[in-house]
Amino acid sequence: MRAVQYRRIGAAPEVVEVEKPTPGPGQVLLEVTAAGICHSDDFVMGLPEDQYTYGLPLTLGHEGAGRVVELGPGAEGVEVGTNVVVYGPWGCGTCHQCAQGKENYCPRAADLGIAPPGLGAPGALAEFMLVDSPRHLVPIGDLDPVATVPLTDAGLTPYHAVKRSLPKLRAGSTAVVIGAGGLGHVAIQLLRVLSPARVVALDVSEEKLAFASSVGAHDVVLSDADAARNVRALLGGRGAQLVLDFVGAQPTIDTAMALADVESDVTIVGISSRPAAAQVGFFRQAYEASVAVPYWGSRSELIELVELAHQGVLDVHTETFSLEEAPQAYERLHAGTLTGRAVVVPSR
Amino acid sequence: MRAVQYRRIGAAPEVVEVEKPTPGPGQVLLEVTAAGICHSDDFVMGLPEDQYTYGLPLTLGHEGAGRVVELGPGAEGVEVGTNVVVYGPWGCGTCHQCAQGKENYCPRAADLGIAPPGLGAPGALAEFMLVDSPRHLVPIGDLDPVATVPLTDAGLTPYHAVKRSLPKLRAGSTAVVIGAGGLGHVAIQLLRVLSPARVVALDVSEEKLAFASSVGAHDVVLSDADAARNVRALLGGRGAQLVLDFVGAQPTIDTAMALADVESDVTIVGISSRPAAAQVGFFRQAYEASVAVPYWGSRSELIELVELAHQGVLDVHTETFSLEEAPQAYERLHAGTLTGRAVVVPSR
Amino acid sequence: MRAVQYRRIGAAPEVVEVEKPTPGPGQVLLEVTAAGICHSDDFVMGLPEDQYTYGLPLTLGHEGAGRVVELGPGAEGVEVGTNVVVYGPWGCGTCHQCAQGKENYCPRAADLGIAPPGLGAPGALAEFMLVDSPRHLVPIGDLDPVATVPLTDAGLTPYHAVKRSLPKLRAGSTAVVIGAGGLGHVAIQLLRVLSPARVVALDVSEEKLAFASSVGAHDVVLSDADAARNVRALLGGRGAQLVLDFVGAQPTIDTAMALADVESDVTIVGISSRPAAAQVGFFRQAYEASVAVPYWGSRSELIELVELAHQGVLDVHTETFSLEEAPQAYERLHAGTLTGRAVVVPSR
Amino acid sequence: MRAVQYRRIGAAPEVVEVEKPTPGPGQVLLEVTAAGICHSDDFVMGLPEDQYTYGLPLTLGHEGAGRVVELGPGAEGVEVGTNVVVYGPWGCGTCHQCAQGKENYCPRAADLGIAPPGLGAPGALAEFMLVDSPRHLVPIGDLDPVATVPLTDAGLTPYHAVKRSLPKLRAGSTAVVIGAGGLGHVAIQLLRVLSPARVVALDVSEEKLAFASSVGAHDVVLSDADAARNVRALLGGRGAQLVLDFVGAQPTIDTAMALADVESDVTIVGISSRPAAAQVGFFRQAYEASVAVPYWGSRSELIELVELAHQGVLDVHTETFSLEEAPQAYERLHAGTLTGRAVVVPSR
Repeated sequence: MRAVQYRRIGAAPEVVEVEKPTPGPGQVLLEVTAAGICHSDDFVMGLPEDQYTYGLPLTLGHEGAGRVVELGPGAEGVEVGTNVVVYGPWGCGTCHQCAQGKENYCPRAADLGIAPPGLGAPGALAEFMLVDSPRHLVPIGDLDPVATVPLTDAGLTPYHAVKRSLPKLRAGSTAVVIGAGGLGHVAIQLLRVLSPARVVALDVSEEKLAFASSVGAHDVVLSDADAARNVRALLGGRGAQLVLDFVGAQPTIDTAMALADVESDVTIVGISSRPAAAQVGFFRQAYEASVAVPYWGSRSELIELVELAHQGVLDVHTETFSLEEAPQAYERLHAGTLTGRAVVVPSR
Repeated sequence: MRAVQYRRIGAAPEVVEVEKPTPGPGQVLLEVTAAGICHSDDFVMGLPEDQYTYGLPLTLGHEGAGRVVELGPGAEGVEVGTNVVVYGPWGCGTCHQCAQGKENYCPRAADLGIAPPGLGAPGALAEFMLVDSPRHLVPIGDLDPVATVPLTDAGLTPYHAVKRSLPKLRAGSTAVVIGAGGLGHVAIQLLRVLSPARVVALDVSEEKLAFASSVGAHDVVLSDADAARNVRALLGGRGAQLVLDFVGAQPTIDTAMALADVESDVTIVGISSRPAAAQVGFFRQAYEASVAVPYWGSRSELIELVELAHQGVLDVHTETFSLEEAPQAYERLHAGTLTGRAVVVPSR
Repeated sequence: MRAVQYRRIGAAPEVVEVEKPTPGPGQVLLEVTAAGICHSDDFVMGLPEDQYTYGLPLTLGHEGAGRVVELGPGAEGVEVGTNVVVYGPWGCGTCHQCAQGKENYCPRAADLGIAPPGLGAPGALAEFMLVDSPRHLVPIGDLDPVATVPLTDAGLTPYHAVKRSLPKLRAGSTAVVIGAGGLGHVAIQLLRVLSPARVVALDVSEEKLAFASSVGAHDVVLSDADAARNVRALLGGRGAQLVLDFVGAQPTIDTAMALADVESDVTIVGISSRPAAAQVGFFRQAYEASVAVPYWGSRSELIELVELAHQGVLDVHTETFSLEEAPQAYERLHAGTLTGRAVVVPSR
Repeated sequence: MRAVQYRRIGAAPEVVEVEKPTPGPGQVLLEVTAAGICHSDDFVMGLPEDQYTYGLPLTLGHEGAGRVVELGPGAEGVEVGTNVVVYGPWGCGTCHQCAQGKENYCPRAADLGIAPPGLGAPGALAEFMLVDSPRHLVPIGDLDPVATVPLTDAGLTPYHAVKRSLPKLRAGSTAVVIGAGGLGHVAIQLLRVLSPARVVALDVSEEKLAFASSVGAHDVVLSDADAARNVRALLGGRGAQLVLDFVGAQPTIDTAMALADVESDVTIVGISSRPAAAQVGFFRQAYEASVAVPYWGSRSELIELVELAHQGVLDVHTETFSLEEAPQAYERLHAGTLTGRAVVVPSR
């Protein structure tokens, strides 16, 4: 079968022919219907050799959707023919975190050699994909795989980030979204659906702010050195109960901290290429503003997100590519010229 | 000044001339701009003498809005001229519940002779109204007092009932509202704004169901003996995560219990004239369905609700009356011929 | 191998010779080190034929501990030789509830023919036991299997019941435990370890009250018609924030309801042989007292409970029996002459 | 009456004769029975003139206990003769935060010129003390004022810090307390009473570690450059679910961050004389470790803490002084030679 692989440190990914896998006990084979391309792939392929820990060759793609085509012995709870998306952050399945479905926080995975597809295990950018357990599959019924596959990361990551802060997003609260791109534009939609918060979006161009408005932001503000002051002016001097930073560079983190109200959450979701950090100490930020860096989401959260998608309230912007075009998609991702989430459709 | 009083057990309320009150230390005098009329007034006026505990004569009205016209000595935190609504369930202000603003659950109020305005203390159906403390006032800025005054009870009661169950109203959940009347039609709107739940409304006529749809219910189902079966059919056999019963009669409570899913909340808000109760025991309802009867709401909840009103997302249906017309309003309330919340405007 | 089976409706369980099972894909074989005997076994064996749904013959025992002796193909996350206890309420493993480890509330289990060991699947009262997945095992290290095996139900059920109410058990709160038997005496210990609540235990004899005191109850009160009044007198007229009823008969439920304070939880855990129920309605109980009937607990809760056991803070009273003596243990359970949780040790 | 005042920037506090205050409308006069001395007084008196904002002369003391001796007009909810402690972080009483009793986070207090006693308003280090409202008093019954007065800050601050993290302190969790001094030794006791967490205390000397053990720490570890490694070794490589830093210097904050487990809380409570901060960013700390700096506590929390004190489970170490000795107490506080919380007893 064809697969898109990262084969040499520093080289571009290639489309190659590899053996079609066979499901072992408990495993499931998917015919891939759609696979998302993500900034973190670019981040991983940009790592120098001494920091690269994902193995070579690596079949890319940690956002996967497919149709179940074969079940290994003892693989139960899903049937051949079902359309599914793949929960990516695989864990051991038995520890305290995994027992709550928070496999994204499994403390044993690294030691046991368990890695997400596309980030260690063979990923979704191929004609077929092996999933280690039925528990990592979420049926999607008649949802469009292309529109749905980004929910597994570009949707799940902001969903988790928003959901943990919902108790703070009471009526009359404000949520600030910095960066209205791949994850940010989903976050805006999720905030509107899940909470009564006033949503203020920040980005660096009028075009991106218009996009943020079009997906539901109540207010938009240019993300520059005056952003914090301008947002506070908009809010009558008050701060926000939640600030989500999907950029994660030092200037955006500084803006986020300046906008945090008492008892708020500041959540850093974006990874900048340059190290950046929030400084948390006395007399620096509002009291009890909690700063954290979460990672991906839980199994039940992905199920909930798919249920939201069934309600038709989410609109993830995508641009589709064939497997052969995947390397170009990565080039455009790196260059910043994609206009939506890049999704590879092997059957194209 | 003129006031609407209940003066004799069993008699209709009358418009009478009483002395205009003067604020003592810590008290605030309001010129009433709007006062809501509520089913519980009718319930109270229907009580036989041996069960009636509110004192006579009683100036009616526990939903009040007004303009601050005079401050007693030491009354701080509010200024003359401010437009406010009145938080009604007054408590002692110092106990563990009151220290969280849950004065609706003050265990000391009865012993201390503290009662809500219109339910013991002189109420809002008058030209002027005395409020015991600035803490019982919520500024409303330029909101219309007529549209806003029902929020103090017809809004606050469902807001509290919904808010306590928000953690259960995840994406993919369902909330059922039984009775789309004065409180129920606000509950539907609140559920839509505060949560991603699918909202199913039940009522007894096609006209009322159309009304429920118009204020935001996703689905409507006739409230009859087959209601539980019909709703479950709609939900693919599943139950709801929250059932709010604004009727509180035995048949609606039975429907509510039959619709409760595992780990759900069943919340009885409506008071029926005949005693009714949910039976909670093994093999009767879904596991961990929690059944409770709440009462009114907290101070911070009313503040949040007013902030929601400022966002323009609530539409409380009202019908206005002058003070002189208040007795007729009560007649129509009792007869069930009101088409919205009755609001008395003393200046009319 | 030997197994204790319920073979004919209405008959006593028998020790019989059955084939030793072999683990299929994903399954795990345990050599049973300890198996608990529970009231619900007695309840099940008391059911008439038309209500009995567990299949015949049924190897009993839903509380199991063992040593892993064989892994089926693809069974990962546990190693041969590990001492474990078995999480009993098996679910599908993939639905929204199971994705959070709440397999006790799996809505698909019944349809899929999945049942707990000893309650449909072959149970722990045998020399060997088949477990369907490594996720249903919790390693116990060097803990004594006899002392630990009751945690899987007699521990997990009250642990879950207490844990869900912890936010209400603030400093200054009260928890009432009705029935200080197999589950109740663990609940008292859990309340002391997990919360600052004052623990008041109710039971029907001075001997049982002395036992309740010995395991940590701050106060004990005879469970009779005056119990609610006596407990309130003890509490200065106030009620409790949590009432756990481990009896579940109408008189104890009535006592529980009478003791519930505003915003409390009333949790019915015990199943009475006669149908019983709490009546929840206006003017019957304290406002926002929430009444529910939970069932067993979640996977992560069992892991937490085993961690508590490692801290040495739990003391479950047990009485041990050999496999051959199991039928007598059931007789004594039925007769009420056991002095602790009955645990069968196949190697005896 | 005599009062201890800070009168000139940089000078030592003095005992002076001032006029006994008279309660105005809504106010309460206390005869002070005990007043605590706190590090933050020392911090305030160390500020240069351009940063000092508390007014001069300033009667010190934000931890106060007393007997109600006079009520201003309209002061209700408390009676003359009652023994009370004073809730210190006074707010406006009407905003969203104050409506929940979180006056410590009132956003309006500064603008309205409202300040805590001893930190702007006249404090407790005097024979009599004016309290602005009965809502700021918590009755203590027959509790010893000397042992109880430190609960208002040295108790309330760690109580709030612990309480907000209780959901993370499940069975099997670990809480680390850095600094077992005035607040830290109360935190250790609170963690033991309120949660099942294993409590690990860090401090800089064997003597202080022995003290930490004596008040309930399960484990103690020397607070040095290897502290994080040593604690992790103790925990089998794992981190803690809560780290409370009562020192707040850069090395202790760094230790705290290194000990934070996934989904943990790092709470900085201590104020160091030199600016210090936690760096929160990708690849620096465990995922979803939340870092925050809280301030004092809420009204209901102080009520809960007093209820805990009634249970006799808290043992705050104190050293008593007369009003005349207060300046020496401040000297010893500054020099670090106090062996417990300094409490001034005006009647001595």
